[in-house]
Parts: sequence; structure tokens; C-alpha cells
Amino acid sequence: MRTQVGIVGAGPAGLLLSHLLARQGVSSVILETRSRDEIESTIRAGVLEQGTVDLLTEAGLADRMRREGHVHHGIELRFEGQGHRVDLSGLTGGRAITVYAQHEVIKDLVKARLDAGGRILFEAKDVRLSGLDERTPRISFLHEGRAQTIDCDFIAGCDGFHGVSRASIPAALKVEYERKYDFGWFGILVEAPPSSKELIYASHDRGFALVSTRSETIQRLYFQCDPKDDVANWPDERIWEELDLRLSTEDGWRVKRGRIFQKGIIAMRSFVVEPLQYGRLFLAGDAAHIVPPTGAKGLNLAAADVKVLARAFEEHYTRGRSDLLESYSATVLKRIWRSEHFSWWMTSMLHRFPDGDPIQRRFQLAELRNVAASEAAARLLAENYVGLPMA
Amino acid sequence: MRTQVGIVGAGPAGLLLSHLLARQGVSSVILETRSRDEIESTIRAGVLEQGTVDLLTEAGLADRMRREGHVHHGIELRFEGQGHRVDLSGLTGGRAITVYAQHEVIKDLVKARLDAGGRILFEAKDVRLSGLDERTPRISFLHEGRAQTIDCDFIAGCDGFHGVSRASIPAALKVEYERKYDFGWFGILVEAPPSSKELIYASHDRGFALVSTRSETIQRLYFQCDPKDDVANWPDERIWEELDLRLSTEDGWRVKRGRIFQKGIIAMRSFVVEPLQYGRLFLAGDAAHIVPPTGAKGLNLAAADVKVLARAFEEHYTRGRSDLLESYSATVLKRIWRSEHFSWWMTSMLHRFPDGDPIQRRFQLAELRNVAASEAAARLLAENYVGLPMA
Repeated sequence: MRTQVGIVGAGPAGLLLSHLLARQGVSSVILETRSRDEIESTIRAGVLEQGTVDLLTEAGLADRMRREGHVHHGIELRFEGQGHRVDLSGLTGGRAITVYAQHEVIKDLVKARLDAGGRILFEAKDVRLSGLDERTPRISFLHEGRAQTIDCDFIAGCDGFHGVSRASIPAALKVEYERKYDFGWFGILVEAPPSSKELIYASHDRGFALVSTRSETIQRLYFQCDPKDDVANWPDERIWEELDLRLSTEDGWRVKRGRIFQKGIIAMRSFVVEPLQYGRLFLAGDAAHIVPPTGAKGLNLAAADVKVLARAFEEHYTRGRSDLLESYSATVLKRIWRSEHFSWWMTSMLHRFPDGDPIQRRFQLAELRNVAASEAAARLLAENYVGLPMA
Repeated sequence: MRTQVGIVGAGPAGLLLSHLLARQGVSSVILETRSRDEIESTIRAGVLEQGTVDLLTEAGLADRMRREGHVHHGIELRFEGQGHRVDLSGLTGGRAITVYAQHEVIKDLVKARLDAGGRILFEAKDVRLSGLDERTPRISFLHEGRAQTIDCDFIAGCDGFHGVSRASIPAALKVEYERKYDFGWFGILVEAPPSSKELIYASHDRGFALVSTRSETIQRLYFQCDPKDDVANWPDERIWEELDLRLSTEDGWRVKRGRIFQKGIIAMRSFVVEPLQYGRLFLAGDAAHIVPPTGAKGLNLAAADVKVLARAFEEHYTRGRSDLLESYSATVLKRIWRSEHFSWWMTSMLHRFPDGDPIQRRFQLAELRNVAASEAAARLLAENYVGLPMA
């Protein structure tokens, strides 16, 4: 097989890249180790920045998102038994976030690619990259029982944190920055009406909690936990008690209960590889960087990477310019580090640190009070949360 | 001896409190373990917030400060070989800082007290407090070879971090929050003209440095060091080389050299005791809280404490109201924790952490770039640096 850009991974980064390239007449093939059903049902993030929504809209991918997603103009910070609204739109000249689950974005992208005749090879096994520092990189893999290859001009590594792409860069030619956190998130899906019109980020002495929503009937709730804990230790009643402890307010607010039909624990880390390019391999999305989910930046960072990368490929193929490809890594790293810092900041402000000294909680509360009291502090949070303008 | 308010410590807190009380007709006596010469020559901080300047001005203490101090409308953040000005006044509706050394403030305060007939007992030894939870607290001490006592209505503990006042509160009735830092500041005084019109806060891979000024001929420079280091390890040439490494810019800026006539190393900690009251003892200034010097908040926090405490005493003596005294601790703790957090934030953004992971430096640079790029982030820094409005 031969294509211009071989894309490893059918997550948001790979699918969106393939879509944007096709609109510019650049051919691509996507390889994905999982099945279509699996990628379309894995529960992930759900907050889209204004810039991501704009990008999806310009790319003709926004019809269902516009119908089923929910535009939010604020979030609530909750601490010391009280809520404090951060007026995202008022603080950012009208920008907003859209709550629309990542797997719904994936469904829209897969459908758009397949409807347009795009090639996505699901359940590709034993994927290997070669010739990355030559003119003719190649992807080798097993598909439907047969060994196959794709020869391409470039490879886009969009295969996530554990994928083969970043691992294919020689260790001496990359630097990996990483911080693991001593806590994770326990996430549940609940059959219940929304508890709140807007997302609630709660910081409690017992730990962080997040009230999020999926629809009028399905809610997504999280609370900080030990990342090595087992969901079996958390019968439903214990979960509700913990959420009540962390989320209750002085005026009697309670989270709305319902049937819990999914439970899971996610670990948290900050991670960045530099650079995002090795020869003809370009990394995008989780293959290059991981953020803790507190800032809701993972999917949005992937979209921002891909916007820059698609434009660089377009300039290469339509005008013979290679400078945008050469500067891709430096360009996207600016936004990546900004988002990494913001995600770390939101995480550190809201979570209980198991090994923290007692003064740390006082610093957190002082900072939270300041976000509630200072317009500058609230605006700093808001402009990062709705997303800085994309490159 | 008998007085209304016995004040332990002739630092900025104790002296200013005595001055403000005298203006309201409330009597006080100040006890100080050191000599007048010693307190008037010890080199400390040098940045006064707008609110501190306003308070000193209203109290009639600003004549020399207005002549000899320097009003600064901005500071510079320097990193990655470039300077970025933070327009303090433009970002805060015209507020500014005044560079005027703490020991000059002390001189003005001592002179004002003595000129007005105020009583300051220098070189008082073996100071002890008693009866703090009774109606008649007493200060016992040795002065000029004789055992003496002062009976008072209240005692103001303004005797700094190592003083007897905080130590006189029973351990079970106070909570102390503390964080020590693995680095300190090496400070020098230099005979040289100013290197810069405004203060320069530099964050370098080798560590923090600060360019400050005293006058047209005396400069105050600092650089981060090991707090256990010895000044003997730092001959002048090594100091200048280190400052050049940390402060040089791409366009060839160099710190101006001159004769170094003072060298010293200061350790850094964050510390707060809660509450600031025990019976008839009220703590103010460093006796109750320490900040790392990066935010230039120590003297200013002391002034803010004293403003609230003086008013509370005034209301007690002139109107018989005790509620302001009872709420003193809660009132000042709000500002204290804000300043503690700000000081920690400035410190963490600008210093090299010896035990930090490599990602920490990247977070720092991302944050510094954001302060340089985001008006909201710069304003957050500016409004805290010039000082929030006093209570």
C-alpha cells in the first residue's frame, strides 16, 4: 500500500488529521490496533475548548455536536462549603466550552472519514515503523491475518502514550519529561438528571471531586482516590457518601443519585516528549504529551497539534514549503507547555496531596479564595480553561 | 511601671503600633532586647507597598521616605536571556511600590517615638510574659541591671520569629504551619551606581537572582544559594561571575560592579501561627508569620497587622468595643494567607529547586512566559506585588 501520510492511531488526533488532510487533497491511511466498536465506546474526556469547537465546525464536523453538545458559559469552584462561579464567557470576551464526550467526537470523525472513502484499518496488529530518517518511511503490520506494509512520505504518530510511534524515536534523540501523581480519579457514570447546570470543581479536605454531565439522563462524576485502589472496594453506597462529604454545601446542596452503571479508576501524570519530530515522523496528541485531566486539556491539545500539523503538510504538498514541518515541534510545544502548566496548576490547587505538609492545604485555600475574589485570578483561569487561541 | 499596651519588640510592627496608639491617646511602652544602634543598622527588606506608604503618610511618618525613597512603577522579570517588564502601575490603576530600606523606616519610627516622648527600653534582657489569660498581664525583664515589671491591659507581641511572645502561648492553643526551603539568598551591598531603574527578578537554570537598589551609590544584590553555605566560600570575583551568569541578557546587559562592603546569607521559610491572639496577648509581624522574601511582603504584612490592631485598641479604649479585638486574628489571617501564598508562588516560580524533577523547570518557564504574555497573569502578579487594599 502507498499513501502520502501514514497515520498511526485512530484517536481524535489521527482521525482529525486524516480528515483535514483529505480536505486539502492529501492522501492518508489510518492504522488502529483496536476495533471500531472499542474506540467508539471508550469513555474519556468531555470538555471542548472554543478553539476545538471552531476547528471542528470549520471542518464540517459539528452537526451532531451542535445538536447534542451543551455550551457552558461558566464553571463552579466549590470549597469550604460554598460555591463560587467563574464566569468563563464574561471573563474571556464571550468564549465558552462545549460539553460533548470524546467518544462522540470519535464517532463523528470515523463516520466522516468512512463516508468520504477514507481508509481506516482497525485491529491492525504488530505495527512497526521503519525508515523514519530516510526519504521512504514504512509502516509494517498484520491485518486480517496478512503481513502488510504502507509506504509513505511521512508518518503521523497519533497512537497515544503507549503507542509504538514515540518508542520508535531513538532514546538519544528525545527528552522525556514526566511527573506521576500520588492520586487518581474514580469516575462513575450514573443514570440521573443533572445535579448542576455547570461543572463543579470541588476541593475538600478529603480530596477533589468533579460534577460533570453527559446528557439530561446520564451524569459523569469523579472523586480523587488512591490510583492503586480497586473499584471493588467502592460499593455504590460508599461512593455516594464520599461524594456527599466532598460536595455538600452550607445551604444543603446534594448530588442527585441514580443507578451507577460504570466505575473506573484513572491514574494521572504530566508528560511531554521533546521534540515531537524525528526525521519523517511527527507526533501528535497523547503520543507526545499527557496532562492530568483537571484542566480538561487532553483532547484539545491533540486538536491544536493536528491543526498545525495539517497546515504544515498542506503547505508542503501544495507549495513545496518545508519550513512549517520543520518548525512544527517548536510551534506546538509553546501551547503544550502552557497547557501542561495550567493542568498542573488546576490539579495542585484542587487535590489533596497525600504527602503534603499541613501548610499546603492553607496555600490551596488562599489560592482558591483569591480566584473567587480577584478578577485577574479568575480571568487567568478562565482564559486557559476556555483555551488560548490556536496557532 | 504601668501602661495600657505593653509592646514587646521595637521592629516595624512594635514601633508603628506604639506610634499609632499614641495618636489616639493610648499609652504604650516598648521593650527591645537589642540596642538602638543595632536595630537601626540591621539590613532587611526594602520594598514598601502602596498601602504601607499610605499608612506611614497618614501617620505623619513619610517626610524622609518621600525625599529619599524611590517610587517604582514596574519590575522586570528576566528569564531565557530576556527581560519582560511588569507594568505595576498600569495594571493596578496607578498603584506603585516605594524602595526605601526597612532600617530607614525603623530610624524614622524610633525618632518619631522618642521626639514625642514615647518610651522605648532598649537592651531589655530576660523578658517574660505572665497573666496573659487574666485581666492583668505583666511583662517582667531586666533593664540597666535592675529587675522591672510593666503591668498593662494588653500585650502586643511584636518580637519577631524567635521572640518570647509566640512562645508564651500554650502549645495546645496554637497551630503552627511551616515550610522550610532548601535554598537561601546570598545578599551583598555594593558601592556602585544602579544597574537598572527598576528591580529585576531573574530566574535562571543556575538559580534565582535579584537586582535591587538602595540609592544612587549603594546597590543591593541577591542570588539564590545553599542556605548552609559560608560567605567565606564567595570571594568577590566568584560573586560577580555568578551574577553575570544568571543576569546577562542576549543584548549584552551586565550588572554594574563595585566594592562589595557587606555579604550575608539568609535562610527562607514560610510560617504562620493560628490564632494570633491568646487572652490579652496579640501577635503582629514576624512573631506571627514569616514569608520568603521573594514577594517583598514581610514588612508590609507587619504594617497591615498593626493597622488593624491599632484600630481595635482604639475602639476598645474610646468606645468600649471589644469585638474588633476579638476578631483581630481572623481579620488579619485573611491577608496573611494571601501574602503567604503569593510569596510562595513568586518563590516557586523563580527559584531552582535542588530536589525538583526536570519537568518542574519547564513548568516554571511556562508560567514565566505566561506572566509575560497574559495581561491577566501579569495583573495577578502586579496587584499582589503592589499590595491588596488594607483592611
